[in-house]
Amino acid sequence: MMSPLQDGRVATSEPQPNISDQDRTNVGAGIGKSCFDLKAYLSQQQQRVETALEQSLPMARPETIYDSMRYSLLAGGKRLRPILCLATCELMGGHEAQAMPTACALEMVHTMSLIHDDLPAMDNDDYRRGKLTNHKVYGDDIAILAGDGLLAYAFEHVAEKTVDVPAARLLKVVAQLGRAVGAAGLVGGQVVDLECEGKTDVTLETLNFIHTHKTSALLEVSVVSGAILAGASEADQQRLLHYAQNIGLAFQIVDDILDITATSEELGKSAGKDLKAQKLTYPSLWGLEKSRLEAQNLVESAKAEVAGWGEQALALMAIADYITARTY
Amino acid sequence: MMSPLQDGRVATSEPQPNISDQDRTNVGAGIGKSCFDLKAYLSQQQQRVETALEQSLPMARPETIYDSMRYSLLAGGKRLRPILCLATCELMGGHEAQAMPTACALEMVHTMSLIHDDLPAMDNDDYRRGKLTNHKVYGDDIAILAGDGLLAYAFEHVAEKTVDVPAARLLKVVAQLGRAVGAAGLVGGQVVDLECEGKTDVTLETLNFIHTHKTSALLEVSVVSGAILAGASEADQQRLLHYAQNIGLAFQIVDDILDITATSEELGKSAGKDLKAQKLTYPSLWGLEKSRLEAQNLVESAKAEVAGWGEQALALMAIADYITARTY
Repeated sequence: MMSPLQDGRVATSEPQPNISDQDRTNVGAGIGKSCFDLKAYLSQQQQRVETALEQSLPMARPETIYDSMRYSLLAGGKRLRPILCLATCELMGGHEAQAMPTACALEMVHTMSLIHDDLPAMDNDDYRRGKLTNHKVYGDDIAILAGDGLLAYAFEHVAEKTVDVPAARLLKVVAQLGRAVGAAGLVGGQVVDLECEGKTDVTLETLNFIHTHKTSALLEVSVVSGAILAGASEADQQRLLHYAQNIGLAFQIVDDILDITATSEELGKSAGKDLKAQKLTYPSLWGLEKSRLEAQNLVESAKAEVAGWGEQALALMAIADYITARTY
Repeated sequence: MMSPLQDGRVATSEPQPNISDQDRTNVGAGIGKSCFDLKAYLSQQQQRVETALEQSLPMARPETIYDSMRYSLLAGGKRLRPILCLATCELMGGHEAQAMPTACALEMVHTMSLIHDDLPAMDNDDYRRGKLTNHKVYGDDIAILAGDGLLAYAFEHVAEKTVDVPAARLLKVVAQLGRAVGAAGLVGGQVVDLECEGKTDVTLETLNFIHTHKTSALLEVSVVSGAILAGASEADQQRLLHYAQNIGLAFQIVDDILDITATSEELGKSAGKDLKAQKLTYPSLWGLEKSRLEAQNLVESAKAEVAGWGEQALALMAIADYITARTY
């Protein structure tokens, strides 16, 4: 994983020789004029992901655990990770059926991390996605097991349900997904986050570590796995990785901003938690204005990475814009 | 998964035509005379697994989580699951390097289930393998995350570190491992186990459900994955599956017996817990004597499944015997 620079942006690879700066600017300008209907695109893709998720995990015995897993998996949400996976698979010449099981697995893994993070032993949250958290409904024991079940099932689902993808590519996805979730990714980020609670001397480097692991790692594998499934070249995977790293950090900065500026109703979870917990966040370090600017810069860097693909990358560029524009 | 018969034994497939009953008896008798030094074999294999486990998970940042994962993963134990995986891989003509990453992954997954089961929100145990449980040392939050980290890493490790195995076979192992751990396996068994706590009207069918899921599922994938990695035929995989189902149930019956007859010191965990919790167990249903007999019958059935492979199957036959003979 690349380390973010001190100013937040992620080091880019060498520019591709066949994409002129002029090309990039033109495409960027096109996006600025909103020739891509992002709202319709997101809504359509979200619907396709919802249908696939619903079918991915049918009820079975023992009902309690399937009920609990489905409760959180099907609780709505932006489905940003699956949508990114589908988008890069398509961008790299693949088709939806190749990526949908991985797209669902990404949401299973993301849901697992939310269920476990919300537990009383961790962040102790009562609401998530506008509904009671899993443990508030099913108890701590079932919530822990529902997370375990979703995590294990994610890998089974990818390995068993993917079609039209050579086994070697799928194994690469399995390995990267495992890495993104484990101690080298999500879990590692959450541990450092817990360790920093109540501390007043947390450095920017530590804050970046938390978020490149807790948020960006899964966004990165969402973006890159779609490309791997479609058989993208290493160079294209790298370019998409940099896109993902930039939007990942931007996403977290915006999350921190929204914790301050949005209401709990808008967020579907408790607002103002970071302030209450005296947590170091980007706004607490930089102030709101500079945080917004940094997020915007990261989004521009992300867009520049994919601009060379022209119209085909409009979805990825619009999603990057959406990250700074979103209000929940 | 096959259902155990009412009397505990698992339905066997058609006998292989090329193995006479006489052959089977001869091999069985050979084992009875202990021509195989099981103690030396287990000790040697255990050492190889320990070394591989130690190398599989080197320390990294954040240290707390790697420390916690390693604390439980390297806490000793019989390493029965890895040893079974290595044994069937070898039996089917494979070599150790093909199976060792999966063998380690099986132990990671098993360790994850122990860490999570021991949590206060679940079985609330203070000791495991003769040491303080993970959450007693690191806290509930880190223990939950250590389990998640081990589970995710198990899949990464199989996908990334296995050598000399075609990708399609490895994917099958990933799928079966996921299934064995999730709601269709371990997690499902634990849920029904939790639901039955304090109930006095639990049926034999429910008790079998709990144990075929909570204990046997992982033993089955331990045995079958080794065969898959070595490229075994479907028929051989089936035969080994029946072996695993029989030793799986025998293992659980013996565990229940030991909970009554062994001391906490011998077990390395709290003894007499089932009695105290008024849990339905095989001894509480059948009495100690019939339970011992059933376990012995299951072990004989298991041995009969693999006897046709003659001397090459001595390790598997000895391991089956060991299950009823063990005292901890």
